[in-house]
Formats: sequence, structure tokens, C-alpha cells
Amino acid sequence: MGFKVGLLGLGTVGAGVAQILLDATGRSPLLQSLELYRVGARSLDKPRPVEIPREQLTTDLQSIVTDPNVDIVVEVIGGLEPARSLMLEAIRHRKHVVTANKAAIARFGPELFDAAKQAGVYLMLEAAVGGGIPIIQPLKQSLGGDRLNGITGIINGTTNYILSRMTAEGADFGDVLADAQRLGYAEADPTADVDGLDAADKIAILASLAFGGRIKREAVHTEGIRNITATDITYADKLGFAIKLLAIARRQGPAVSLRVHPTLVPHSHPLARVDGAFNAIFVEGQPIGQVMFFGPGAGSGPTASAVVSDVLNVAAAMQAMGERATPVINPMLACSHSDFCPIASLDDLETRFYVRFLTSDRPGTIGHIGSCFGNRLVSLESLVQTEVNGDEAQVVVVTHAVREGDFRAALADIHASDAIRSVASVLRVI
Amino acid sequence: MGFKVGLLGLGTVGAGVAQILLDATGRSPLLQSLELYRVGARSLDKPRPVEIPREQLTTDLQSIVTDPNVDIVVEVIGGLEPARSLMLEAIRHRKHVVTANKAAIARFGPELFDAAKQAGVYLMLEAAVGGGIPIIQPLKQSLGGDRLNGITGIINGTTNYILSRMTAEGADFGDVLADAQRLGYAEADPTADVDGLDAADKIAILASLAFGGRIKREAVHTEGIRNITATDITYADKLGFAIKLLAIARRQGPAVSLRVHPTLVPHSHPLARVDGAFNAIFVEGQPIGQVMFFGPGAGSGPTASAVVSDVLNVAAAMQAMGERATPVINPMLACSHSDFCPIASLDDLETRFYVRFLTSDRPGTIGHIGSCFGNRLVSLESLVQTEVNGDEAQVVVVTHAVREGDFRAALADIHASDAIRSVASVLRVI
Repeated sequence: MGFKVGLLGLGTVGAGVAQILLDATGRSPLLQSLELYRVGARSLDKPRPVEIPREQLTTDLQSIVTDPNVDIVVEVIGGLEPARSLMLEAIRHRKHVVTANKAAIARFGPELFDAAKQAGVYLMLEAAVGGGIPIIQPLKQSLGGDRLNGITGIINGTTNYILSRMTAEGADFGDVLADAQRLGYAEADPTADVDGLDAADKIAILASLAFGGRIKREAVHTEGIRNITATDITYADKLGFAIKLLAIARRQGPAVSLRVHPTLVPHSHPLARVDGAFNAIFVEGQPIGQVMFFGPGAGSGPTASAVVSDVLNVAAAMQAMGERATPVINPMLACSHSDFCPIASLDDLETRFYVRFLTSDRPGTIGHIGSCFGNRLVSLESLVQTEVNGDEAQVVVVTHAVREGDFRAALADIHASDAIRSVASVLRVI
Repeated sequence: MGFKVGLLGLGTVGAGVAQILLDATGRSPLLQSLELYRVGARSLDKPRPVEIPREQLTTDLQSIVTDPNVDIVVEVIGGLEPARSLMLEAIRHRKHVVTANKAAIARFGPELFDAAKQAGVYLMLEAAVGGGIPIIQPLKQSLGGDRLNGITGIINGTTNYILSRMTAEGADFGDVLADAQRLGYAEADPTADVDGLDAADKIAILASLAFGGRIKREAVHTEGIRNITATDITYADKLGFAIKLLAIARRQGPAVSLRVHPTLVPHSHPLARVDGAFNAIFVEGQPIGQVMFFGPGAGSGPTASAVVSDVLNVAAAMQAMGERATPVINPMLACSHSDFCPIASLDDLETRFYVRFLTSDRPGTIGHIGSCFGNRLVSLESLVQTEVNGDEAQVVVVTHAVREGDFRAALADIHASDAIRSVASVLRVI
């Protein structure tokens, strides 16, 4: 019994998938039940790292998703359209779909999963988060006995690379970004990465699996790393922290707190040591405690590995299903929840803060800042006047865990007074 | 449709499993299809952290594995017998079996898996390695598209705890062991842990999954940590290494190299930073590159989490299988290989070595050691005479990657001469 794969996209990831499917040596024996049947690419003549027989290639992607012989459609063209329409069309033609498309899943997940449920097919997305790191399937399967409380991840390799280099070199954001673009670690338009949008797509997906409910993409509070300076990295380091762009999903009472922001991470935390383009996802649950998954968060090989693991899982489930008239879906591979998760208000978040003020070097400034925080019940862990240039001083404050709404109110009070010149930076601390 | 679970053993892990099965709130909805049906314990009257109705409890474990109503047997009594016989009996009665028993699987795996295959049932073992860390199922499923080249793990929490404390405190093995026993981190009889036997059981299991062949337990070359001294930890640290008990399975030509031994790990390697009772498993493959799984390697909660994930996987597969006369096994959950892996000779291993000699402080000693290595084509990275007490000196050598057989021959040459007083320690380096 063989299963026929229709591959949409022959860029770096698509070529990586094809390479695995065409050379099963030393890999899962189940690969031998898979046939790379049709491949859709934008151009038929472009030179590629993998040789596909010309008769399998087509530029007509639509013809693949409607081909009655295709069992599994692999979507690795990326972007929102035509990816969404092609996946929907494939599902309506009762094909299982494997995708690496975090943007489409984060935005159109409900529509796509509803369609898959109705058609009795699998919609698989291991490659959408964490590149090659197995995280989607472990969340569905391996942690099913746990009550998950939080997921904290470094899930964007570009920003982690930039922050790691800024830390190692004492360099500023703009210089490192330009160099990262030159070296291919950052896109020409870096918005999706550096503004946290890609990480927000991914944490929305992870939260949905961890908490068993749908997530509206816009519910993810998102801050990027453009405003991080070498100065803040240096202060953070002195205080015992690394600055990382974290994507966080946590239970907050009956709701879920969802956010992406640069964060001070204690040097002793395993995530503080994840450097360069690597990703790591830290999961907390009861009774498991804490587990972490670490690996390459992007790249054609790792992403292809994740795509193929989904294809294998679908093939295995099809084998176990046999020739039945009504498809029976294995619940460990499906995403069957349909309610939306209630989202917590950011004001109600309990977190520690790091804040750096620029002030005039005048007596009473520190006392004033301290009492503004005190009036709003914001308890401080440390408050240090760190540097004086002429008549300017910097005051760096680290709070205890406080309600974000109270902290923001105190900050507004401080702003309203003339005690400070500006708030140079505000960062959360875990 | 409900599935009935028969639980063998109500120690800490068994009680943890029962607690999850009895309280599904916030966990996988699939838990609601499971019923904790019968529980076998040594004593009916012992107070326990979980309340089991008296009529479900029995001391007659045999009656559980033969009970026609039981669908899934969970074996958490540990040890070789009666665990092996009970599992075989359960399998013969066509029950799926979930076990946390690495010792029994490492020794009786072929017998147990053959029986499971014949009966058409699942034999699941996520909890046997790495406690709560998802590693078995990711190896079976998530890395199926990869050609795995090596697994390197810290998979014994007791020894990692002891080595971490020796490193942090500059203390010697005996003192830390005694304290670890007092605190419950080491057993009264610590042999299985400190001599590497437990880690050897586990790497045999991981290697079997990674390389798709059976492994004879005695094929694992095993060295423990009893001979590690504070002196070596200090020298290693100065050279840029931590000392860890690693379990290693690697492709070596057409064969597999299998070993457990204390190892110098560069400080920059992710495994060097895994401290205390934590476990971490580092997997290398093509095209994924490197991924690491980190978490609590033991404990009732984490182990119970892993056990329940297997139970859920079996229940999901049973649901998908439906009421068919002939069972159809999902190949992503089964271990279907039946050939044994060829095992590489330790002599042919290519590795770096660290060796510390005690010598008399005489001119020519270093030259003699150097030429003994040179004669056997053992290339040295560094050779340092590090300390002199009266007429005694220590010489610490680090080699480049060399054939182990050549290194051992050179060591014998050095021994045979009177250039040194003794070989204080020999450790491999990764």
C-alpha cells in the first residue's frame, strides 16, 4: 500500500522534503510507503538541489490539490494566499494536509481545522513552530496527562541571533540588524521578525494546543526588539539577566495571558543560555514540572524533518485506518477543540519590571520616583542611580512582581511630574 | 466508549498515575475515556496520597493481567520479576502494556516485543527513559524522517547530582554520595546508578529506537563515576570542560558504538550546563542537525506524566481502530524491528582522551611520554606538567581524536617503562 504525496512549493524547505522522500536509507521504514507523486513549483526550469522528473513537476498548484490520486498535500509555499485557498481546496477534496505555514494557521486556523474535521482528514503543523524541534506532537501527545500552566519560548531565530550578537559585541540594534541581513540571518524586510509578529503567530499556535482552545491571533500582545539598546543589555547583565525576546502563554486565573516581548531572563534560567539562531521552548505543567525542547528553529533541513514527521504520522494513521468507508481520526493527531480561550487583560498581569529613567541630577528625584511607585502599591526590589553625565543621571528600577495596571499608573504619575526627563526603557522580567 | 486500565503497583509512580486518571480537569479530554479499573498493590492498608476504593484494590496482580475486562495494563512495580512474567501474561491475554521498567525492557525487550507483535497489542515505554521528558515517542515519530547519527544523554539523575555537587563544592565522591543518600537522591545500594548500569539500560533502549535494531544489553561498554576525583574535576575545569556521566550511542561505520562513561564535556556544549538531578538527551541527525530534550529525569510526577501519555496514545489508537476483528497496529507507536544492531569494537572508537599521570620529577619524563604516544600515532593536543610535590609530579595529557586501540597500546607502553608511577585517571573527551 502506497500513499501519494503532492508537494506545493519547491523552495529550500520543499527541496528538503523532496530529498528525504526520495532517499529513505537509514530513516523510518515507513518512508517506503510514501511516493512523491506531484510537485508544484513556480518555475519548471530553475536549477535545484534535488532532481525531480519533469513529468512530476507542474506550475499548476490547483491541479495537485484536486488530483484524485493524491493522498497527502504538503504546503510549503508560505504566505497567506494562495496557501489558505489551496489548503481548503485540498481538504475539501479529502486530502490530508501538512503545512509549515504559521502565519496562515495562526490567522485561519479555525476555518482550516473546521474544514478538516468536516472532511475527516488530518491538518498537521509540526513545522510551523520551532523548525525541526518536536514540539507540536509532544504537546498533543506526550503532555496529554499534564495540566499545562505555561509555555515560554525563544521561537524566533532572527531576533535571538540579533540579541545574542548585541550582547556579545556590545553593539547596537541597527548595526547588528544590517550585518544579519547581509549574512542572510534577517530578511530584507525584517518587520515580521524584529517586531515580534512571527513569534506571536507561533505562540498563538502553541497556546491553542497547550490550553485546548482556539486563540484569536490579535489577542497576542506583541512588542519587538527595535528599542533594545546596548545600554539596557549592559545594565541587565550587571543585574544578572540576559535580554531575550520571549513568547509567553500562561494561565492567568480562568483566562490565558498571551504576549511577545523582550524580557530580562535570569542568567541561571535555561532560556538565558540559548544563543544565536537556536530556538527553545520551555513548558511547565502539573505533574511534569518543567521540560525544555531545544534545537534549530529554522532552516531547510530542520523544517523538512518536521514536515516529513507529519507526513509519516498521517501515513501511519491511514495504514491503521485501513479501507474503511468512514474515516476515523486518531485524536492524538487532531486538533478537535472549537471554543475560544478567554484572554486575560494585560493590566491584570503579575510580573516584575525593569525600568530605566533619564533624570536631571537633582536632590529628591529618587525619593519622588520611589513614592510614586509606593502610592500605587508597586513594591521595588532595587532602585539605583547609576551614572551621571553633567547634569543628567540614569535611574534603574527593578520591581517585585506587581500588577501591570498598577505599574503603568505609577509610571504615568512619574511622567506627569517633572522629576524625570524621559523613560528610556521599560522591560518585563521573568 | 471507555477503556479500562489495570494498574500494577501503587508506589510513588503508581500513585501519581492514579491521581492523573482520577482527576482529568485541565488535561487531555481523552482522559475521560479512561477508567482506573483495578489496582494491584503489595498491601491493602498502607496509607497513600491517593484514595482508591477498596473494591478496586487487590494484592493479586495475576488477577489483573488475566481480567477479561482490562484493556491496558500499566506496570510500575519495577524490577525484573515478577514484572517480566506479568507483562508477558498481560500481552498473551491481548492487553496493551505500558511500562516504566527500563531494566526489564533493556534485558527482555526482544521477548516482550515479539509477544506484543504476535498478540497485536502495543508495548509502550515512554517512562523508561528520561522520566517525564518526551523522548521515546519523539524518536519513534518526530524524527522518523531523519537519519540519526548519535544520541548523547545525561540520563541518570543520581550521578549528575553527585557530579554537580562535587564540581560546585570541590568535594570528593564518597562524601557527596553519603550526603546524597541521606537526602534521598541516591539509594542505599547505589550500584545501579553510580556504576552506570541504569544509564546503560536506558541508552540500550534509545539506541534501539534511533537505529532501528535490537540491542543486546551487554553490548553497552559501561564505566561509572566511583573513580572521579575532585582533582580531575579541577583540572578538567581549567582545561574548559565539565565532567559528566554520558550515555552515548553513535553510528560507527556500519555498526553502532554504545557506551556509558564519565566524559569531559566542553563548557560551551549544552550538556555541560545540565546540572543537578536533571536529565538531557542530545540527538544528532540528518537533516535536522541537533535537538535537545531537557527535564526532570525521575520523580513520581514526571514519570507518571510519561506513563499516562502512553496510556492516552494507546487509547487513541484503540479508538481509531474501532471494533475490528483483527487488530491493526499503528506503526508510529510500535517497535517492529527484529534484527540486532551490529556493535562496533571499542578499540575502533575515534575519541579524544584526557589522562593524568603521577610521575617522579625527573628530566626526560615528558619527552618519554610524548614519544610513547607518538610511536602509536596518538597525536597530542596538550601535555602539561602541572604540579610538583617533593619528588612527585603530575602530567596531564589531552589527545586529539585517536583510535582507542592505539591510545590503549601507547598507555601500555608507558606503563611498561618506569617513566611514570601510576595512571591516576583516563577519561574520554567529547
